[in-house]
Amino acid sequence: MKILIVPNLRKDGAAGHTREVIRRFIELGCEVTLGEQFSYIFENSGARFGNYSTELSRADMIVAIGGDGTIIHSAKDAVTADKPILGVNLGRLGFLAQLELQDLGLLGEIVAGNYRTEERMMVKATRVLPDSRRERYYALNDIVLSKGALSRMVDLDVRCQNEMVGAFRADGLIFATPTGSTAYSMSAGGPIVDPAIDSIVMTPICPHALGSRPLIFAPEKVLSVNQRIVNYTDKLYMTIDGEQAVMINPEDKIEIKRSTRRVKLVALDRRNFYEILSDKLSSRG
Amino acid sequence: MKILIVPNLRKDGAAGHTREVIRRFIELGCEVTLGEQFSYIFENSGARFGNYSTELSRADMIVAIGGDGTIIHSAKDAVTADKPILGVNLGRLGFLAQLELQDLGLLGEIVAGNYRTEERMMVKATRVLPDSRRERYYALNDIVLSKGALSRMVDLDVRCQNEMVGAFRADGLIFATPTGSTAYSMSAGGPIVDPAIDSIVMTPICPHALGSRPLIFAPEKVLSVNQRIVNYTDKLYMTIDGEQAVMINPEDKIEIKRSTRRVKLVALDRRNFYEILSDKLSSRG
Amino acid sequence: MKILIVPNLRKDGAAGHTREVIRRFIELGCEVTLGEQFSYIFENSGARFGNYSTELSRADMIVAIGGDGTIIHSAKDAVTADKPILGVNLGRLGFLAQLELQDLGLLGEIVAGNYRTEERMMVKATRVLPDSRRERYYALNDIVLSKGALSRMVDLDVRCQNEMVGAFRADGLIFATPTGSTAYSMSAGGPIVDPAIDSIVMTPICPHALGSRPLIFAPEKVLSVNQRIVNYTDKLYMTIDGEQAVMINPEDKIEIKRSTRRVKLVALDRRNFYEILSDKLSSRG
Amino acid sequence: MKILIVPNLRKDGAAGHTREVIRRFIELGCEVTLGEQFSYIFENSGARFGNYSTELSRADMIVAIGGDGTIIHSAKDAVTADKPILGVNLGRLGFLAQLELQDLGLLGEIVAGNYRTEERMMVKATRVLPDSRRERYYALNDIVLSKGALSRMVDLDVRCQNEMVGAFRADGLIFATPTGSTAYSMSAGGPIVDPAIDSIVMTPICPHALGSRPLIFAPEKVLSVNQRIVNYTDKLYMTIDGEQAVMINPEDKIEIKRSTRRVKLVALDRRNFYEILSDKLSSRG
Repeated sequence: MKILIVPNLRKDGAAGHTREVIRRFIELGCEVTLGEQFSYIFENSGARFGNYSTELSRADMIVAIGGDGTIIHSAKDAVTADKPILGVNLGRLGFLAQLELQDLGLLGEIVAGNYRTEERMMVKATRVLPDSRRERYYALNDIVLSKGALSRMVDLDVRCQNEMVGAFRADGLIFATPTGSTAYSMSAGGPIVDPAIDSIVMTPICPHALGSRPLIFAPEKVLSVNQRIVNYTDKLYMTIDGEQAVMINPEDKIEIKRSTRRVKLVALDRRNFYEILSDKLSSRG
Repeated sequence: MKILIVPNLRKDGAAGHTREVIRRFIELGCEVTLGEQFSYIFENSGARFGNYSTELSRADMIVAIGGDGTIIHSAKDAVTADKPILGVNLGRLGFLAQLELQDLGLLGEIVAGNYRTEERMMVKATRVLPDSRRERYYALNDIVLSKGALSRMVDLDVRCQNEMVGAFRADGLIFATPTGSTAYSMSAGGPIVDPAIDSIVMTPICPHALGSRPLIFAPEKVLSVNQRIVNYTDKLYMTIDGEQAVMINPEDKIEIKRSTRRVKLVALDRRNFYEILSDKLSSRG
Repeated sequence: MKILIVPNLRKDGAAGHTREVIRRFIELGCEVTLGEQFSYIFENSGARFGNYSTELSRADMIVAIGGDGTIIHSAKDAVTADKPILGVNLGRLGFLAQLELQDLGLLGEIVAGNYRTEERMMVKATRVLPDSRRERYYALNDIVLSKGALSRMVDLDVRCQNEMVGAFRADGLIFATPTGSTAYSMSAGGPIVDPAIDSIVMTPICPHALGSRPLIFAPEKVLSVNQRIVNYTDKLYMTIDGEQAVMINPEDKIEIKRSTRRVKLVALDRRNFYEILSDKLSSRG
Repeated sequence: MKILIVPNLRKDGAAGHTREVIRRFIELGCEVTLGEQFSYIFENSGARFGNYSTELSRADMIVAIGGDGTIIHSAKDAVTADKPILGVNLGRLGFLAQLELQDLGLLGEIVAGNYRTEERMMVKATRVLPDSRRERYYALNDIVLSKGALSRMVDLDVRCQNEMVGAFRADGLIFATPTGSTAYSMSAGGPIVDPAIDSIVMTPICPHALGSRPLIFAPEKVLSVNQRIVNYTDKLYMTIDGEQAVMINPEDKIEIKRSTRRVKLVALDRRNFYEILSDKLSSRG
């Protein structure tokens, strides 16, 4: 079994924990690789180093070591290569990591194939420019359209299957997957959606219309968003999974729909979703 | 075509409007019947009168004349007999009625078969008594578990597929269908769910745990609720679609799941869901 | 110094802790009394027993032993007799108790007069009956107007200084003091008000008008509430501090204003309000 | 009576309406002045033009013609010169303008002195730099501390009288006056505070801790805010009344307290606050 390991070395103790994961996989007879940028730090670990893209395509499984952010980032690479991903948690309690450090003994089960994979929906945003060029973005958590720091608000028209859903004046709009319903959307007042239901959650951020509520759209629906210009100094940004930001011009149109790509999370049924949720809710802050 | 008409005579002008609907269906060549309790008020209208259950089983379509409450009530009879239901609105703007009074000219389209039906999910609550007897209740909008007027709160343990979801201390819990997401659940802070997504929305009413959020469960999940007794003076009631209430004993268990029954609404594609929603939101209050 | 002790014996270990409090006050040279109903359980403790009202008027300080509910109940007696009240906490973390069991060593400070008192605003509700009779109720936390368990909602017109504030369709309305802002009002979505600001917080419970927001009224304002009858089966109840309930007739009018009575809490500056708040928020559930 | 007129010419029809206001005041025997930048557009109107600061100090009343934003901006100049301000509304329904265009007949009452003034609290923010320099900012609506568009959140420690209130992870914090409670704070979920109660409303924007609630502080309290650095790419901005923005360095401290300055609004008792509120709530969006 070929394992590609992607560690987030900014986490405390990440190098040591990664070395331990490498050691265990090698003992279990796996071939372990990392991107060549890690060769210096993990030399003599028994792992091989190579070009990240090449190793991604050759791996049987991606193992991301870090927090939920690390796993989200790597999951999008894993999905492109159609590989399953396993998260080893170095951060605070997370929804996506399946293994805590004290559970490394379970790596044997995984190598033996005793696991199932859980598919997670992704959302795709297409930015349609005035000259009809299309830029595509993929998110596992959320696509956020929001005002610039010095703008007062954005004014967005949202359509679903070309029918008007509403004109929203707000600090922004969050389009979240069920996976993302426990992230930024939750802070903005959104509901928590069972990852087993494909759907798109649209949560307004500080809506000026007080009655605004989160809306849950069926997964086959195509949403589109246009900026209604009130004031040219109001800037609009699109943020993808909180890690990439694009400035959107007033003439651009954004389309939001379910991606055909699906993340495959290695799942071990150790803790249920609601148990993690309950722990997170009482510890957040 | 055999039409069973169910009018809500408490609505202003209901008798006159019902007479008009009867006249139009007869002109269009339909056979129109009503329950025998209406024979006095609609005599000479050309309609026939009969036993409600018999006429229900013989009808091709149920036509409910009134508000959303009237339609919800009749829809549950229609679903038992597996008949489509058409709502004619006499109330404030509603989500379920497809025809306003000024649209009666469209009845010809319906008699000609130029309509589609839209299926709506129902939720089933089973009350399991200590002697294992089971009482079953069906809702198109919602099942609400709530405290008595003089109780301080209820304390409910919720499980999903036998795994603990949480212990909720609150005034109550609402289990809504997507159809019901625009009703009581919305007042309690719940999200609005596209009727095309089968799911169960659980919205807490005045939760003591401040972080409590509405949860959206996948439709194949079975939920169960137990009362955790804090104080024997705390009473628990179960309300079905806001029209039927049952007192629940501390030893009873409540199971909530999607019903296999589905309402078939006659749909005319005249107004989209979000247009109605936007009108409702700005007019409520 | 004469101390009247009011224990809540339903709390775990209350008898033993009360006996300890009695012993310490006697050692400090105080005269300790309890209501005569406690004579059996605390005989040989060194305390005297007498008629509750008489002892209340003769005491220098009331000491309530129990949770926030116990203190609220006794505080209203204390205020009638214009005496300061000290709460000793036997319950979960509370906002009103100043002493935890491990702090009983501080009783010496109190007997020595080394404490300040903190005044807390109360709210007064007057029920005006059709024959002009007036019933008066006093709350330290809140006056709640709410629907019966089987009603769908209440429909209430609220006026401030005879000017219309709004027509509210909701499960109910909470009128809270700043002290009560951390109780039921908080569960219904209300803000937390510094006990140093006299004001009345009106928080709607499950409002049908989605934009409804909690309103904070200046303390000199007089509010009045009338029931707008939609349906005679809808019942209205008034609950005072969650411990007394009155059924309100459709013809009754309710007036809400600041009481001239003020609770005097013995304060020791051991923990600040926001520290307790933060602990409560993370532990509630 | 000397009137200084401050029009917002970006509003539709502002020039014509301003000319009408000038004409009426002159007919009523007043001396009308405007800043010299308006001399070209209002020449031949009978008004005089002069240096804005000089005219401000010589005027008996400031008349701002525009929307709530225009009035807020001018009010801060008026307060510096200790003059009353009258707002004439050209925008959507507002809370601060006392005259609508159809009410210009009432200007006679104002010139005759038949009006009262209503004082409104302002909030003062002091930015304390590491070298102890202090920059002072004054707001009639709100001081907002918020993240940059591309930051994930800010992490702020808030103290009240040097006691810890809490550590807030959020998109930002709003510190609003009662006047500002109907502005941005309301969009972020804040309560509506009677302008007659001096207080500071702190409303978190998208708080990560789900239980976070708006807090209302007594007016004599001094709040201070420090940035807890999680990530140096996270930027913090301070916005004053939505019209001025300052970037805050990690080492800066922000102090928030009631200003000793108070706006004097010319008040005509034509519409009550709650009537305007109710109209705004149903029309926003």
